[in-house]
Amino acid sequence: MNNFEFYNPTRIIFGKGTIPDIDSHIPENARVLMCYGGGSIKTNGVYEQVVSALGDRIFFEFGGIEPNPDYDTLIKAVEFGREEKVDFILAVGGGSVLDGSKLIAAGIPYTDGEVWEIVKGGKSAKIDQALPIGVVLTLPATGSEMNGNSVISRRASKEKYVWVSELVFPKFSVLDPTTTYSLPENQIRNGIVDAYVHVMEQYATYSVNAPLQDRQAESIFLTLQDIGPEALETPPDYEARANLMWTATNALNKLICKGVPEDWATHMIGHELTALYGLAHAESLAVVLPHLLWFQRERKAGKLMQYAHRVWGLAGDDESVIRQALAEMTAFFNHLGMPTKLTDYGIDPDEAANLIEAKFDKKGTKLGEHSDITPKDVADILRMSQ
Amino acid sequence: MNNFEFYNPTRIIFGKGTIPDIDSHIPENARVLMCYGGGSIKTNGVYEQVVSALGDRIFFEFGGIEPNPDYDTLIKAVEFGREEKVDFILAVGGGSVLDGSKLIAAGIPYTDGEVWEIVKGGKSAKIDQALPIGVVLTLPATGSEMNGNSVISRRASKEKYVWVSELVFPKFSVLDPTTTYSLPENQIRNGIVDAYVHVMEQYATYSVNAPLQDRQAESIFLTLQDIGPEALETPPDYEARANLMWTATNALNKLICKGVPEDWATHMIGHELTALYGLAHAESLAVVLPHLLWFQRERKAGKLMQYAHRVWGLAGDDESVIRQALAEMTAFFNHLGMPTKLTDYGIDPDEAANLIEAKFDKKGTKLGEHSDITPKDVADILRMSQ
Repeated sequence: MNNFEFYNPTRIIFGKGTIPDIDSHIPENARVLMCYGGGSIKTNGVYEQVVSALGDRIFFEFGGIEPNPDYDTLIKAVEFGREEKVDFILAVGGGSVLDGSKLIAAGIPYTDGEVWEIVKGGKSAKIDQALPIGVVLTLPATGSEMNGNSVISRRASKEKYVWVSELVFPKFSVLDPTTTYSLPENQIRNGIVDAYVHVMEQYATYSVNAPLQDRQAESIFLTLQDIGPEALETPPDYEARANLMWTATNALNKLICKGVPEDWATHMIGHELTALYGLAHAESLAVVLPHLLWFQRERKAGKLMQYAHRVWGLAGDDESVIRQALAEMTAFFNHLGMPTKLTDYGIDPDEAANLIEAKFDKKGTKLGEHSDITPKDVADILRMSQ
Repeated sequence: MNNFEFYNPTRIIFGKGTIPDIDSHIPENARVLMCYGGGSIKTNGVYEQVVSALGDRIFFEFGGIEPNPDYDTLIKAVEFGREEKVDFILAVGGGSVLDGSKLIAAGIPYTDGEVWEIVKGGKSAKIDQALPIGVVLTLPATGSEMNGNSVISRRASKEKYVWVSELVFPKFSVLDPTTTYSLPENQIRNGIVDAYVHVMEQYATYSVNAPLQDRQAESIFLTLQDIGPEALETPPDYEARANLMWTATNALNKLICKGVPEDWATHMIGHELTALYGLAHAESLAVVLPHLLWFQRERKAGKLMQYAHRVWGLAGDDESVIRQALAEMTAFFNHLGMPTKLTDYGIDPDEAANLIEAKFDKKGTKLGEHSDITPKDVADILRMSQ
């Protein structure tokens, strides 16, 4: 096992009827900026519950944070928050609202430079303070409710980066599974697939003798496979939604990646597909992952064989077992209604391959746990997605 | 799944050579009280590494914290710490040193009443502050390095209680597996069994439809079974010790118990055996658990069957499968060199049964996740331990 640090101070408040509990965790005299997305919280009852829990506190609202939150939107919230001297950020929504709220929380006190510098700081974003953040999660998927990650897009310059800081771990996150009841089916499906791929990025690399982390990752695969179809059902089933919500959080609370290598190539390629063709994040992952894993079957043989044996109960130790396991995984995605080929979206794999190869070539991008997936390899992977 | 709160702010610093990192996590101007046990840290190199990392900081020492730390010992450290105006507690040792250090950290600023009141507060100990605690762990077993629990004995009045507070989560815990190299075999064995039983107490109850927690618990069983024998070997194997250390922490960092019922009857009975016969904590658990689970096989049928299938790969769904799984578990303990019967220690099961039944009768103790294990049941369980 590699050396590591683990730190995750977010308080999770989980279950039906827990939104009122935010009252105990926000200072009485806070000036709160409530951040949200397209406004669905105003029609599904969540907004009323949050406002009621805030009681007599002074609060302001900033709505309209879009999927793949845009820097130009968020900077308006930063300016508004500074004007109103807010000192607590309450994010109500899914991963995009949470990621955006993290930048708002770090951006408001960041007055010595341009807020974009925080995003450009990447994995060691240089901030020395951030406003405290509370979360009411309404969409299980990204894990942002229990980590210090934030993915920010800047449409004006066609950029998209992840930045990370311990200072933007939420102080608390309320996970009430009933808030997911009004979600359309595709968002639940995206959440299941997103969580599954998060786990695969932390699992399917090479062994460093970390059997607990492997088994914890497999726990999440198996649980998602068990509960996924049920979680999609309408009318919604509380237990299935609860299990999905907690499982998606555990998929990216950074426990299973401790002491082991990580991949994230599927995410890097997926981000480009989202930028080029507007695929939802999870959709972009599902058209890359099976092909990338097959392409890398020799490099990842040990883990993929273990995945085949333990997660799909397959016997044997030749390449056909890996093929079969990836077919099972693909069938699981498809069974949820998630396409796994670019052609399913009418996208020409050759075109995608050429465009992304050219971009990665220009930037000298190499991907994967060994940094050995070249731009040409990426093109080959994308051409398999048909 | 039941509603729950999860909060665990301890920073884990894991791996070979990490003791010097404590320098980054203790304030430069701290007045440190270094707490330890019988002094083995002075012969295995840990003491020198800690002192070197403390650098120019002012520090004091309090050694001699015994296994099952005694209130009368700890209160001396509290008085000493007050006199010297210490403001940071550094616990260097295993679970007993850590548990004792938590009481020292809470006791020093607790000047309005008797420090024993903290212990008597139990699961909702009434303290409003504690000195910050740092940990250098040298013995994987209890999980105290990543939770807010503290078990304190008071030999003078033959009492032993667990108390819990969020304020005594360690700020950081350094887990360097090489610190375990000088441990005698029986302490490693006790650690493996202790961690295993911790997981069983959080797992073998009744299902509330929490599949992730179940699988995370099974991950720990399977890992301990895989690595246990290797972790016992001399010369010590780094990977095996590293995996044991991280697994034992995960066994009681309170993740797998979230949203599910818990048992802890084996611990309550084991505490009595320790008090009566001086069995080590893990030894006391191993002579109770197999018999208690068999006694409760109907109440716990669903989970025990799942355990049999998933952890031991057994097929079938009648009682014989449970019997077989418990035989496998017992064989695993025995293979590690851990006895599983009172008679293995020359203890008369009848005597133990009578004494403990009488004590529980007097206190009206009922145990287990349904609070339906009566004193007479406890006696029956103990009589099976032969």
